[in-house]
Amino acid sequence: MSRPITIALHGGAGNLVRYRGTGRLEEAEAFLSTLIDDLYVMLEGGSAALDVVTHACVRMEDSALFHAGRGSSPNTKGYVECDASIMCGRTRAAGAVASVRSVKNPILAARTVMEQTDHVLFVGTEAELLAEHHGLAVVDANYFQPCDTAAIATEVPSAHRGTVGAVALDLNGILAAATTTGGTLRKTAGRVGDTPIIGAGTYAANRVGAVSCTGVGEYFIRTAAAHTIVSRMQLLGETVGVAAGTAMSDIEALGGNGGIIAIDDRGNVAMPYNTTGMYRAVRTSRGERLVASL
Amino acid sequence: MSRPITIALHGGAGNLVRYRGTGRLEEAEAFLSTLIDDLYVMLEGGSAALDVVTHACVRMEDSALFHAGRGSSPNTKGYVECDASIMCGRTRAAGAVASVRSVKNPILAARTVMEQTDHVLFVGTEAELLAEHHGLAVVDANYFQPCDTAAIATEVPSAHRGTVGAVALDLNGILAAATTTGGTLRKTAGRVGDTPIIGAGTYAANRVGAVSCTGVGEYFIRTAAAHTIVSRMQLLGETVGVAAGTAMSDIEALGGNGGIIAIDDRGNVAMPYNTTGMYRAVRTSRGERLVASL
Repeated sequence: MSRPITIALHGGAGNLVRYRGTGRLEEAEAFLSTLIDDLYVMLEGGSAALDVVTHACVRMEDSALFHAGRGSSPNTKGYVECDASIMCGRTRAAGAVASVRSVKNPILAARTVMEQTDHVLFVGTEAELLAEHHGLAVVDANYFQPCDTAAIATEVPSAHRGTVGAVALDLNGILAAATTTGGTLRKTAGRVGDTPIIGAGTYAANRVGAVSCTGVGEYFIRTAAAHTIVSRMQLLGETVGVAAGTAMSDIEALGGNGGIIAIDDRGNVAMPYNTTGMYRAVRTSRGERLVASL
Repeated sequence: MSRPITIALHGGAGNLVRYRGTGRLEEAEAFLSTLIDDLYVMLEGGSAALDVVTHACVRMEDSALFHAGRGSSPNTKGYVECDASIMCGRTRAAGAVASVRSVKNPILAARTVMEQTDHVLFVGTEAELLAEHHGLAVVDANYFQPCDTAAIATEVPSAHRGTVGAVALDLNGILAAATTTGGTLRKTAGRVGDTPIIGAGTYAANRVGAVSCTGVGEYFIRTAAAHTIVSRMQLLGETVGVAAGTAMSDIEALGGNGGIIAIDDRGNVAMPYNTTGMYRAVRTSRGERLVASL
């Protein structure tokens, strides 16, 4: 039996039924359908899990279809703040940035922190300077094309939380996870959610699992959601489905909502959410393939 | 048998043997000796764990004896950046601030985030504005009296990492944890460690335990140290000593160092560290009392 590979993505969870009939769900699904196959081909060709989840996030950031990267929405003070994190399951090396305004691809800034510094997290202007110093593309406020322009115009709350993410298991059995967000529309300025918090929005540990979360970040921080899932799999031997479901139930019990993508070291996948939808896609070497939003 | 109460503190871990003969260890221990008794009296009198850990951190921040609050050290760009977090075990409510420069007591800003907003983490200028808006004391750069002036003058590395913290179990069986830091001397500007990260530097869950960490924060983030300890106690039934020791060993295996204070819901305490010293104090209703640095 050949070694298993798996790639799973999310593009945010929320009240997506609201978009029925607008063409928006179909547009996002078409994008994810192409992306999931491209990423699977990368894994089949021997690409490292870390490179695959990075590439997944860059593509979603650049698409302007989700609340991340180009699609980020302005906060209460009218400017975009992005957060991102990435983790390698083999070494448990991690990198993250929070509250960056001028970095085109926050996930690349997170990876730069992981690989080019002794640190895990940089915030604000200094994180931007670090990214620029390492040659990452810088953009101005005109770059952003908020994906939720209807909500901006009508002052209705955004139908889904920002945040996109990816988890992968590569041919070498290495797990990785990455998450990136441009915040919710009219997010309070300076507020940081779970996306850049290792253990909350993102976690990966080889021989156990990899997790990326989306939703009301405060609940994922308070429950240490990503680490909880990995801990339950590691310490209790729970399946990825039971572990992720338990974490989701805990968040719901506290009053939170959102979604989770989680995989284990054999390529099994769980994608629970307690909203009306979650943009998501998965493809595994067992022949599973799913692209969905509701 | 009466209900157990416990209070434990740390004032940072590091190469403290270097301070032998300077009087500095004795000065810190004298301070902690008074403080631990004051905090114990609060608990005996029925004060809430959350109030006791808050008070503990405020006193340590104001003392200028540790790398937190008034004793914070300038970063590579010459200014102080403070981080803090607090968590209530009963509700798992949490609050945190990162990279604040002008807040006199970062732990009070963290508590304000927890109690006065729907959020968990605020960073930078907006965190400062939030604190000011809620009436917290604001200071300018002259306020700080770096506790490591010898190291500043001589350009030698600081002998210990910043970060102070407290964990408490109150008469109602409620657990709480709080951690606050002014960063290491010449910390890279914009870098944020484990202190404001719920699950890394701070975690509390009733009926399980409360944890506060100090040391090279990156390793505590990568291992989700505080949450790991609570998870092991909760899921495996490990004692607080075994769980905290295992987390410490994991950090050491990755190349990290520091220390941990952890308590369980019956008031048992563990205070492992793998440096030459950790300022620490503990007092329990079983009659245990310890104040030590080496």
